[in-house]
Amino acid sequence: MRAAPSQEEVRRHNLGVLLRHVHVLGPTSRAELTTLLGLNRSTIGALTADLTAAGLVTEATPRDTGRAGRPSLVVRPESERVYVLAFSVAADHITAARVGLGGVVLDRREEAVERGSYTPDDAVRLITDFVTDMRAAVPAGARCVGAAAAVNGLVRRDDGRIRLGHNVGWGDEPFGAALTAALEEHPNVVVGNDANLSALAEHTRGAAVGSDHVIYLRGDVGVGAGVIAAGRLLTGFDGYAGEVGHMMVNPDGRPCACGSRGCWETEIGEPALLRAAGRGGRGREAVLALVDAAGRGDGAAQAALRQVGDWLGVGVANLVNVFNPEAVLFGGSLREVYLAAAAQVRSRLNRNGLASGREHLRLRTPQLGDDAPLVGAAELAFSGLLEDPIEVAMALELAAAP
Amino acid sequence: MRAAPSQEEVRRHNLGVLLRHVHVLGPTSRAELTTLLGLNRSTIGALTADLTAAGLVTEATPRDTGRAGRPSLVVRPESERVYVLAFSVAADHITAARVGLGGVVLDRREEAVERGSYTPDDAVRLITDFVTDMRAAVPAGARCVGAAAAVNGLVRRDDGRIRLGHNVGWGDEPFGAALTAALEEHPNVVVGNDANLSALAEHTRGAAVGSDHVIYLRGDVGVGAGVIAAGRLLTGFDGYAGEVGHMMVNPDGRPCACGSRGCWETEIGEPALLRAAGRGGRGREAVLALVDAAGRGDGAAQAALRQVGDWLGVGVANLVNVFNPEAVLFGGSLREVYLAAAAQVRSRLNRNGLASGREHLRLRTPQLGDDAPLVGAAELAFSGLLEDPIEVAMALELAAAP
Repeated sequence: MRAAPSQEEVRRHNLGVLLRHVHVLGPTSRAELTTLLGLNRSTIGALTADLTAAGLVTEATPRDTGRAGRPSLVVRPESERVYVLAFSVAADHITAARVGLGGVVLDRREEAVERGSYTPDDAVRLITDFVTDMRAAVPAGARCVGAAAAVNGLVRRDDGRIRLGHNVGWGDEPFGAALTAALEEHPNVVVGNDANLSALAEHTRGAAVGSDHVIYLRGDVGVGAGVIAAGRLLTGFDGYAGEVGHMMVNPDGRPCACGSRGCWETEIGEPALLRAAGRGGRGREAVLALVDAAGRGDGAAQAALRQVGDWLGVGVANLVNVFNPEAVLFGGSLREVYLAAAAQVRSRLNRNGLASGREHLRLRTPQLGDDAPLVGAAELAFSGLLEDPIEVAMALELAAAP
Repeated sequence: MRAAPSQEEVRRHNLGVLLRHVHVLGPTSRAELTTLLGLNRSTIGALTADLTAAGLVTEATPRDTGRAGRPSLVVRPESERVYVLAFSVAADHITAARVGLGGVVLDRREEAVERGSYTPDDAVRLITDFVTDMRAAVPAGARCVGAAAAVNGLVRRDDGRIRLGHNVGWGDEPFGAALTAALEEHPNVVVGNDANLSALAEHTRGAAVGSDHVIYLRGDVGVGAGVIAAGRLLTGFDGYAGEVGHMMVNPDGRPCACGSRGCWETEIGEPALLRAAGRGGRGREAVLALVDAAGRGDGAAQAALRQVGDWLGVGVANLVNVFNPEAVLFGGSLREVYLAAAAQVRSRLNRNGLASGREHLRLRTPQLGDDAPLVGAAELAFSGLLEDPIEVAMALELAAAP
């Protein structure tokens, strides 16, 4: 029940909204922005002038548009000069990228790591090396406006502390603070859960653009979800929402790493799938090999996919009943399971999901693949700038830069 | 990504925020409103003058405050002149109330009905009679600013159509439209799900005031939830979110009325509890009798409560893992089950719920009792007025009324 903003706050808000449009859509004409924002032309002109002066966008006359009359100026994000650092700490690889305003990946480094065998200190060291390495290519005058990391674990909202990272083998870790300390010259590193940030990424730039009620399911060893409800990421009180892998679905099921039994991830995680097929190995490669074998007629692999597909449908039905989403996206190795066992998933969903909640439901695969957590981390890192562009630009002396 | 509002929209928004404060808190001094809204004294004075002129509040000097200096004017909602109609269609009773601005129940009618034996037409007739009956006491010049009904069923968000009301025995019903047509002289009747509206009520005026991540569980024959996430009611894409009673928790469980099997409500609904104790009867009275018997040492009743309490804990743990709420409220007959089996609920929650999500969790009983859906319906009915007070007041010619 806060009161509405003052005129100055309105202007700042509008600057943020305009910059967000240009950031998400890329180069956009003033005429389009006028329509999108529902503001008049002179207001749009004043806002783009402010953003240009702040060093955040440039404006230029487009090439011949083929139409009569003076063409509308095109507003472009200053992608080379305004960037964030985005990191992704997954079970088996660590990635760092320099991402320009507009979502342009300017530079990136990635290294495969042994699942569960690296410490938070190892991750901090590797990321610091990546950043140092990428620094050489940063043009003079460019400014880092934010930094964020996607982590496979429970992340406390208020301080980025990682409470539980089963799959990376971490306990209670002040990862955000450690990374911030190591990257001395850069902004605070905000930390987010990988499924949450994947949901944010697909909602901003992927398969869920325009859908405001979305569940992004992410599976590898464990299973988590990022939930977009009414256009906003569901965080919960502490930031731990979306631990759907620990819905108990089978009272007679196997023990789970969390201490409970019969959690959804014990039925649909990679180990469950491989075990059901009597196979060894682990990770995405092992899942792909299994799916491949099923495609070539391997009966055990086919049966395992049917079984896991059925359990996948059970949990999806639960989530559909609870959230009434418009779309469910299957990410990580659940993408392969879903594609190979879509009939089982659908059939179980039809049996267990309320008809009302299924009417407008779409089951989809994500568009951003394994980059989703990294893209989401970049979006998280940009959020401060997009909230109040001028404030951030002034603090970093962007306009004054050469 | 809508642009921020114009100055005029800011004023309207501020009027709504101020009126909402007075509506929720009751009579409030200008000094308090200045603090609450973070606006200066002259702005608050202008806003209260506008609301007074519109016939929505009155201002008066308080009685001797015992303090030196001129006392701050007290702003009171015009409860007698500005009211809504709120209805609740529950499994075994139908209620109508006239509720004044400020949440004051000015008049109410209620009738017990036979569970599952009345049609939507019966409900419309009964409610219409109630309204006609209450009309006699409406003072000249008073205005109805909204109407809403809480219904035990799935309610489609965009038109108030009831898709499924298992417990009231309804199929696909255009209940909102029928009620609106029957109550000719009154505003459109908005329809909401009873658990959702109970959550709204407890969040506005009950046990969840100040908590922005709340799950209100409501149980009788079936089980539903209203979820408040980041301060807002979770609706889902069509309005069907919160059907937690149809989470499958027991693959070997009983068939559910929804067509699935092992749904949570088949383990914790009233029939499951009574059956587990080898008892007949139905409804709240039968549950209370069972709890009473357990208190007097009835072994079968005690065992049934332990069993159902355990399943209650299973589902609550699932919801805690999925939503990371600050509070879970147990409403309807789940209130009695929770109070009688809190140890089982806690114990199961500790086993199945992630430790991180339990840290700040409070398990609570609601404060508004069986009136919660009615109170929530009143809040829903007031929402249009609180969104844009002057517009609504002008349309109804409130100020011009005698």
